[in-house]
Amino acid sequence: MRDHLPAQLRPRLQVVDKMVRIFELYGFQPLETPAMERLEILTGKYGDEGDKLIYKVLKRGDDLKRTLEEVLLLNQGSETGPVGLTDQISNAVSDLGLRYDLTVSLARVVAQYANELPKPFKRYQIASVWRADRPQRGRFREFIQCDVDIVGTDSIVADAEIILLVIDIFQELDFPGFEVLVNHRRLLKALSKACGNTSDQFTNFCTALDKLDKIGRDGVAKDMKERGLETTKLDELWELADQRCYIETKDELNRLFQNIRAFLGGDDESLVQLEELFKLLENLGIPDSIVRFDQALARGLDYYTGPVFEVVGSDPSIGSLCGGGRYDELVGMFSKQSIPAVGTSFGLERIVEVLNDKGLLEAENASVDVEIIDLLNNELGAAFCGRVMKILKHNGISCELGYDRGKKTGKQIKNADKNGIPYVVIIGEDEINQKHVEIDDIIVTAKRLSDGEQKRLGIIEFVNWVKEQ
Amino acid sequence: MRDHLPAQLRPRLQVVDKMVRIFELYGFQPLETPAMERLEILTGKYGDEGDKLIYKVLKRGDDLKRTLEEVLLLNQGSETGPVGLTDQISNAVSDLGLRYDLTVSLARVVAQYANELPKPFKRYQIASVWRADRPQRGRFREFIQCDVDIVGTDSIVADAEIILLVIDIFQELDFPGFEVLVNHRRLLKALSKACGNTSDQFTNFCTALDKLDKIGRDGVAKDMKERGLETTKLDELWELADQRCYIETKDELNRLFQNIRAFLGGDDESLVQLEELFKLLENLGIPDSIVRFDQALARGLDYYTGPVFEVVGSDPSIGSLCGGGRYDELVGMFSKQSIPAVGTSFGLERIVEVLNDKGLLEAENASVDVEIIDLLNNELGAAFCGRVMKILKHNGISCELGYDRGKKTGKQIKNADKNGIPYVVIIGEDEINQKHVEIDDIIVTAKRLSDGEQKRLGIIEFVNWVKEQ
Repeated sequence: MRDHLPAQLRPRLQVVDKMVRIFELYGFQPLETPAMERLEILTGKYGDEGDKLIYKVLKRGDDLKRTLEEVLLLNQGSETGPVGLTDQISNAVSDLGLRYDLTVSLARVVAQYANELPKPFKRYQIASVWRADRPQRGRFREFIQCDVDIVGTDSIVADAEIILLVIDIFQELDFPGFEVLVNHRRLLKALSKACGNTSDQFTNFCTALDKLDKIGRDGVAKDMKERGLETTKLDELWELADQRCYIETKDELNRLFQNIRAFLGGDDESLVQLEELFKLLENLGIPDSIVRFDQALARGLDYYTGPVFEVVGSDPSIGSLCGGGRYDELVGMFSKQSIPAVGTSFGLERIVEVLNDKGLLEAENASVDVEIIDLLNNELGAAFCGRVMKILKHNGISCELGYDRGKKTGKQIKNADKNGIPYVVIIGEDEINQKHVEIDDIIVTAKRLSDGEQKRLGIIEFVNWVKEQ
Repeated sequence: MRDHLPAQLRPRLQVVDKMVRIFELYGFQPLETPAMERLEILTGKYGDEGDKLIYKVLKRGDDLKRTLEEVLLLNQGSETGPVGLTDQISNAVSDLGLRYDLTVSLARVVAQYANELPKPFKRYQIASVWRADRPQRGRFREFIQCDVDIVGTDSIVADAEIILLVIDIFQELDFPGFEVLVNHRRLLKALSKACGNTSDQFTNFCTALDKLDKIGRDGVAKDMKERGLETTKLDELWELADQRCYIETKDELNRLFQNIRAFLGGDDESLVQLEELFKLLENLGIPDSIVRFDQALARGLDYYTGPVFEVVGSDPSIGSLCGGGRYDELVGMFSKQSIPAVGTSFGLERIVEVLNDKGLLEAENASVDVEIIDLLNNELGAAFCGRVMKILKHNGISCELGYDRGKKTGKQIKNADKNGIPYVVIIGEDEINQKHVEIDDIIVTAKRLSDGEQKRLGIIEFVNWVKEQ
């Protein structure tokens, strides 16, 4: 877990601001849920491995005491020795857990407030989640998730809207050379079946295929064999995979879809949906060069049921920057019926890192813009400083009155410089003796600390000088 | 703990936006710290009662198992029965806790990053804290704290800056009839001493005096007697208290300070500081009617060491909206030396509640502004919709393509209305058949759902129609 000091935090806040502006333009609404959920809400949703990573919160006060006494007394004199008791105690002493992701909380909210929420419900949530993972480089136990979802419609328009939103955001961020790779979860199922695998083997098929970029075709073939998968039709599959790499035109894409149909030995609903989605995205004005079909894209998570996508940058070592898709069975887990949903999750910290490394985020000052140095330290000086600060703040320039009022000017300027403050305004006898009823009359002595340039100039001229930077 | 659905969340986000803008104009920097801190960081800082309210997080995996086995094996066969064991187990199984406030984390950060942070360090943090309190009306186990502090200077300029900031924020929020009451912690000490109390009795003196508004003078006198405090000089104290209620001019304030000096039998540093603070605030342009001296103001927390203040609204039943002051001994708790600090904490949820109740926050739509209804459901229709949406978003109007594309118009409009969407734009044959190369040529059919008014108008005219609302 990390502290985010101002200088590290500002780039992320800048990216979040841009994202939120676009979420809002698409009509997504902000949602906040508690950091803690009841344990029964959290467990059983992330697989056994995931469950182990949930941070559990100890029961409190008498409740904890009572629980422990119960377990201990029940086992008194029983054959379960102290060592055998540890699991029983561990399971009994906790009732709450820290959220592991934002999706389970969304599902709970959708079930709990069914009558209050619009249908479909479009929400975004940017919040911390916690996982008791072994810490690794770039992986933290507390990290921010940034999720956008549309819950309650199975319309392909919603799938297209999420992809449009994602593209708008990466364009707004001036993210260099990004692509959106699109596939369909059920097309993978059909491909697995057409290769001769049973439906039990589907997850194995995806896991192996997902490694294609890392271990190559021979590696995948070997891995599939070890997993007991059918490999006789792999050559045909690779031929299809080859085709996807060279698609430049809509015609070539359509030809690939036809070739896949031939491989499957007939049509598949997933292909029909993909064709519709690509057509809609094209009509809505998205160039083919940004959205690409990739039938090897598997997406790690099991819960997807329809179109899936992933955003990759020009540097493949960075991995996925954003991913999502349709998951019609997940959100309904706390409701009585299944509820269709489609959404995306931005790899916020990774995106910020790339933009920061490439110098694509505005450098922001982690300090005040202007320090006001009051040489007079009397009533007239303070009144003049108060007036200057009011004008600066009114014009969006941040400023503060130096805390060492009355101390040596040189030392005050040096301290301001050390704290990264770019400008100082020095208030002395000259300033208060001038006529300064009107704003236009106010002349100040200002110094830019980067190069030491000092000027006497009107307060509004000074505002413009600061804003030039 | 609560969910914040969009309609409840938006008013708070609106207030936070305004606050943050002003924090930044004063040069305060954002800080984020982890939700969890090591237990030894948290405990011993909030008194025994506070410690009991800290949410503790269970150790994980092998670490938990090992801890439990150790405790159980150590006690095997010992005289400590199962019931006696519960405390040992409770204390051993947890290593982390959820933060109880933001001040302890600030103190840790100041000690940990001493060389990286500017001196003084001005930071704001708006974040959730957790307290395992018994839930009451308006009190929650997860709530947001909004803290602003200046760490590392004992200059009275910093005290004045915090009070200026607070006033700027309440003015920016158009908060009706607020006042800032100011006192000095050490003046209370001097008053307690002048009444004849020992320094041990100071906390009792403050606690009793703090109830003045609630239980009146006779009540306070009775309470003081029961606490074993000296009450012979109370009448003189009440006379001073009377005077503070009628201060309208700077002269009257100075006279009161002189009378307090007489009561104390000499000068006190706290009075000198208060005079300096009031003078500075006045010179910086703050009217006397906003900042008032209140020598009965005690502020609950023990850790204040200098000037303290509190913001109250015109409705006394609402209580304090914001409070703060100087606390020179607290931030240094993890450092080797004491570090002076002054700061404030806004009662964010209370402030939002008052503004909301008085209708002082802009009503914000918890939905998209415009729904685009595509009657054509073909390529030309989608392309036209895509173009319209681009123009609307570019002009800051949020919009979405209806998910029921191609379904009955009436039903689509009804659904939009049900979801609170104020406008629909209907795209049919007329729209795509018009010449629409230039933006100025694009005519749309739009309907305002609140009154059913329908118009055919240019897209930019439509933008203005929506913005009028």
